[in-house]
Amino acid sequence: MKKLINDPADVVADALRGMALAHPELRVDHENRVVFRGEGPRQGKVGLVSGGGSGHEPMHGGFVGRGMLDAACAGEVFTSPVPDQMVAATQGVDGGAGVLHIVKNYTGDVMNFEMAAELVAAESGAEVVTVVVDDDVAVTDSLYTAGRRGVGTTVLLEKIVGAAAEEGRPLAEVADLARRVDDAGRSMGMALTSCTVPAAGKPTFDLPEDQMEIGIGIHGEPGRRRVPLAPAREVAEMLVEPILSDLAFTGGEGVICFVNGLGATPLLELYVLHAEVAALLDKAGVGIARSLVGPYMTSLDMAGATVTLLRCDDELLRLWDAPVVTPGLRWGA
Amino acid sequence: MKKLINDPADVVADALRGMALAHPELRVDHENRVVFRGEGPRQGKVGLVSGGGSGHEPMHGGFVGRGMLDAACAGEVFTSPVPDQMVAATQGVDGGAGVLHIVKNYTGDVMNFEMAAELVAAESGAEVVTVVVDDDVAVTDSLYTAGRRGVGTTVLLEKIVGAAAEEGRPLAEVADLARRVDDAGRSMGMALTSCTVPAAGKPTFDLPEDQMEIGIGIHGEPGRRRVPLAPAREVAEMLVEPILSDLAFTGGEGVICFVNGLGATPLLELYVLHAEVAALLDKAGVGIARSLVGPYMTSLDMAGATVTLLRCDDELLRLWDAPVVTPGLRWGA
Repeated sequence: MKKLINDPADVVADALRGMALAHPELRVDHENRVVFRGEGPRQGKVGLVSGGGSGHEPMHGGFVGRGMLDAACAGEVFTSPVPDQMVAATQGVDGGAGVLHIVKNYTGDVMNFEMAAELVAAESGAEVVTVVVDDDVAVTDSLYTAGRRGVGTTVLLEKIVGAAAEEGRPLAEVADLARRVDDAGRSMGMALTSCTVPAAGKPTFDLPEDQMEIGIGIHGEPGRRRVPLAPAREVAEMLVEPILSDLAFTGGEGVICFVNGLGATPLLELYVLHAEVAALLDKAGVGIARSLVGPYMTSLDMAGATVTLLRCDDELLRLWDAPVVTPGLRWGA
Repeated sequence: MKKLINDPADVVADALRGMALAHPELRVDHENRVVFRGEGPRQGKVGLVSGGGSGHEPMHGGFVGRGMLDAACAGEVFTSPVPDQMVAATQGVDGGAGVLHIVKNYTGDVMNFEMAAELVAAESGAEVVTVVVDDDVAVTDSLYTAGRRGVGTTVLLEKIVGAAAEEGRPLAEVADLARRVDDAGRSMGMALTSCTVPAAGKPTFDLPEDQMEIGIGIHGEPGRRRVPLAPAREVAEMLVEPILSDLAFTGGEGVICFVNGLGATPLLELYVLHAEVAALLDKAGVGIARSLVGPYMTSLDMAGATVTLLRCDDELLRLWDAPVVTPGLRWGA
C-alpha cells in the first residue's frame, strides 16, 4: 500500500489536524470529529449538517462555510459517523430555526442520523428534518444500501440548499427544496482501478488491467458490469445513457453537469470526459446551464469518474450561483 | 494504460474542448492552444503569459482569469509549447503596457519563450520581459533542465504577480516582483508511483512497491534518491529539511505553505502531509501565514506530493489575499 499517511488507525484524526491548519476560518472539534463554520450559528438561520465516512474529501468537511454546510461529521474511512458526532454537530449549529440533516443513502448513515435526530429531540427539543439523497442510477440495493445509493447530487444539493438556508428560509421550505433537488438529480460512475482502504492495506477489489467497472459505488461497491477498457467517448455514453433513460432532462433551464473525479484521475482526463458528456447532451437536446468539473467527491485513491446531471429551473440556478465560501467550492464572495 | 481519454494523440485538444465548455468565462483559441481571459486585454495593464507542457492541470490554463494570468499556452503532454503559440498569446494580451512571460526552468520552455519574445519584438514592438522560475532544491541540472527546475513557486508567483498587474503597476515593477517571489520560494517533491504519458502508454519509470523517490521532478525526472516507504511524518522531514537548509525562512511575516498533490494522491493524504509539514515548521520557528493544500500542479497520474515554502513580507501577503477569479484558484470576488 503506497499512501502518504502515518498509522492507518490515525488517518482521519491526522487529516482533520491538517484541515484545521489549512483552513483557520473553520473550527474543527477534534474530539467529536466535526468540522464547523468558524463564526458559529446565526440566530434564525436553519442549520445544515451532513457527514459520512471519510475518504471522499473534500466532501463533506470541505463544503462547510458560508452558503453551504454549517457542520460536517467525519466518520472513519468508508464508515458512518456515530450518532454522538451528529448530535454534537446538530447542537453546535442550532440557531433556533431547526436543523436539516443531509444524508447519503447508506444504511449505516441513515440509521445513525435517525438515532441522532431522536437523541437531539429528547435532549434539547431542536427540530430536525432529514433528507436522504439517493441519486445513483447504477443499481438498486447495493453492498451497504437499501434502494439507490447517494452520490454526486449530494454536492450540488449541499450548495443549493445552503444558499436557501443562508437567505433565512424556514426549515420546511429548505427541506422541500432539498427533496426537490434529490428528485431532479441522477448520477452514474465508473472505475478504472480499485481504491485501498488504509486499515485494509490492500485494494478493495481486483480489476484486471484491461477492464473497467461501470456503475461503481464510491466505496468500491460492485457496479452493473465489467467491460473492456474503452475510449472516453464510449465511457461517456455508458454513464450518460442510463441517466437520461431514468429521467427526462429536456425542458426547464438546462442541467448542472457535474463531472467528478474519484481521487486518482487527473483533471486533464476529467476535462476530456466532460467534453464527451457535453457532446452527448447536445445530441440529446439537453442544455448545459452550468458545469462543475473536478475531484469533489472522491473515493480515496480510486481512478475513475462519476457524472451527475441536475435538472434546473431558474430558482435552482439562482441558488447555485449564489456566493459560497468553503474550502472545496468558492465563488461570488 | 488505464486513462479516461480517446486517442492519445488528441488528449490536449480534447481536454481544451472540455475546459472551454466547463469555463465559458474563458476564451480558448483551439488552433493555437491558448487559454485567454474572456474579456480581452485591458489597456494599460501588463499582460501575464505563462504556459508549458500539458499534464500539470490546473496549471497553467486553470490560472487564467482576473487577478492571475491573462493567457496560458498548452504544449503537448510534458512538451514545451512552440514559439508561435507564445506569440499568439503575447499579442492577444497586449494592452500597451508590455507583457511578462512567466517561464518554468526547462530548457525547451526557456528557449521557445525566448524565441517568441524575439518574434514579438520584431513583429509588433510590444515590450516583453521574461522571468524564469527555478525553485526546486532537489537537484541542479536535471533531465530537461540546466540549473534548478521550476515547480510549485510558479503557482504562487502567478497569483501574487497577477494581483500586482491587476493594480496597474508598470512592467518593470511587475517583473521585479516576480524575481523577488522566485528568490523567496523553494520546493521539493516526492513520488510514490510513476506517471504514464498517454503517447508512451507505459509508466515513465519503475518504482518498486516498497520504495518511493525523493526529489522527483514533475515530469518524472530522477530525484535525489530512492528510499523505502515511510510514514508521512518522515516524508515531511525529507521534503522540508532540504528546503529549510537552502534558505532562511525565519523572520518576515511567515511563509505561504503549499502542499501540492501530483495527480493521483487524494486530498485526505495531502491534509495528513500538511499537518506534518506544519509541525516541522513550528519546530523550526517558521510561521505559516497562509496555506494552500490541493492538486494545483500535477504530473498526470503520479501519486506523490510537493512542498513549497514562500517567505513573505506584508506586500506579498496582501497580493496573495487580493481577489482572484480563475478555475483553479478563486477567492475574494
